[in-house]
Amino acid sequence: MPRAAQLPLAVIALSGGMDSCVTAAIAARPSRLALLHVTYGQRTARRERQAFDDIAAFYRVPQRLRLVAGLDHLARIGGSSLTDPDIRVRTSGRIGRQIPSSYVPFRNTQILSVAVAWAEALGAPHVYIGAVAQDSSGYPDCRPEYFQAFQQLVDLGTKPDTRITIVTPVLHLSKADIVRKGIELGAPLHLTWSCYQNEDIACGKCDSCLLRLRGFQQAGVPDPIPYAS
Amino acid sequence: MPRAAQLPLAVIALSGGMDSCVTAAIAARPSRLALLHVTYGQRTARRERQAFDDIAAFYRVPQRLRLVAGLDHLARIGGSSLTDPDIRVRTSGRIGRQIPSSYVPFRNTQILSVAVAWAEALGAPHVYIGAVAQDSSGYPDCRPEYFQAFQQLVDLGTKPDTRITIVTPVLHLSKADIVRKGIELGAPLHLTWSCYQNEDIACGKCDSCLLRLRGFQQAGVPDPIPYAS
Repeated sequence: MPRAAQLPLAVIALSGGMDSCVTAAIAARPSRLALLHVTYGQRTARRERQAFDDIAAFYRVPQRLRLVAGLDHLARIGGSSLTDPDIRVRTSGRIGRQIPSSYVPFRNTQILSVAVAWAEALGAPHVYIGAVAQDSSGYPDCRPEYFQAFQQLVDLGTKPDTRITIVTPVLHLSKADIVRKGIELGAPLHLTWSCYQNEDIACGKCDSCLLRLRGFQQAGVPDPIPYAS
Repeated sequence: MPRAAQLPLAVIALSGGMDSCVTAAIAARPSRLALLHVTYGQRTARRERQAFDDIAAFYRVPQRLRLVAGLDHLARIGGSSLTDPDIRVRTSGRIGRQIPSSYVPFRNTQILSVAVAWAEALGAPHVYIGAVAQDSSGYPDCRPEYFQAFQQLVDLGTKPDTRITIVTPVLHLSKADIVRKGIELGAPLHLTWSCYQNEDIACGKCDSCLLRLRGFQQAGVPDPIPYAS
């Protein structure tokens, strides 16, 4: 087995949620982790940042391989319940039928473009993102076609000798599969944060909490974080 | 002729340089301007911001249609002479033979992704960017194929009812053509800033100054801004 220092670097977009945490756990096998966290003025920014720091510490990622990028213009642009306090976070549970109010315009492109820029500067051959297509909430920028188009953009928009592959290891997994994979790999699921609504205790009612709870239930294991009753 | 308020909005990526200024002048004919300025910790950020403000005032763009986005992580990522004081700005004049040191990793994708997010939130059908392929400095993300791939990403990565077209009106123009076009449209070229090196008086030696000066020379008109002698 190669020594850790010999492993290639991989940039991971790590929101601090369950999907990105399991993605980091998957990437940690063949790579050294470089962890990117993007804040964009979302409601739960402080709590997500804490989850990022906790997960980075868990994987002993040195400070020079952690990057926190502030895309505060996304809050000024608005158009999403995650960044605009005047738009309600959906708690209807009618997941997947329409574009949810939590859709942030073109968010994944912004996150991935930072990740690719950093990967190019680091010489990292892989960028991982924990997008989920199957039982996600219907975001257009979580579909396989979107990631294929982004890969083409990377191939055309970076230096000729740059080779960066976008890796989406949980794209086709269900939330239950992601829970199982996380447990199999010893991912620190207890350090993750998924709630769109609260920062102190997860609400258990927003789309993100509902999807997470359903995943743990279907996987037959308890969610290690507490919820408001 | 329609009243200005009836014209559709267009988001313009306006660095404050000559190419983006002429692009704004072109867009101002069929659209109301929404001006986006991106700072990324580049050497001449303060001066470029002033050029942006001056051009926005020239076109009487209201404050709510001006967005300044700070992508400061690009300076932390480094890898470019524009953001890293340890890398020298090239003044060799050997333009177009290799990727220049001023290449900022994946910069246009980051600028365009902010522009598209804002356009989606505003309901603007067009995003303009003043990239130049022909006599540009060899940036991979200034090529026509790159913009075609980005258009595909926009089509796939935004809401199903969003229609945003990326417009690159100076992509195939020479610098001389851009000067001529700017003069024809009354673009405020005297308010623009192109120098990569200085903020007080243009150096006249960096790639960006050299390309600009050559453009004015070939167009047979004097550059209205002063240069260090």
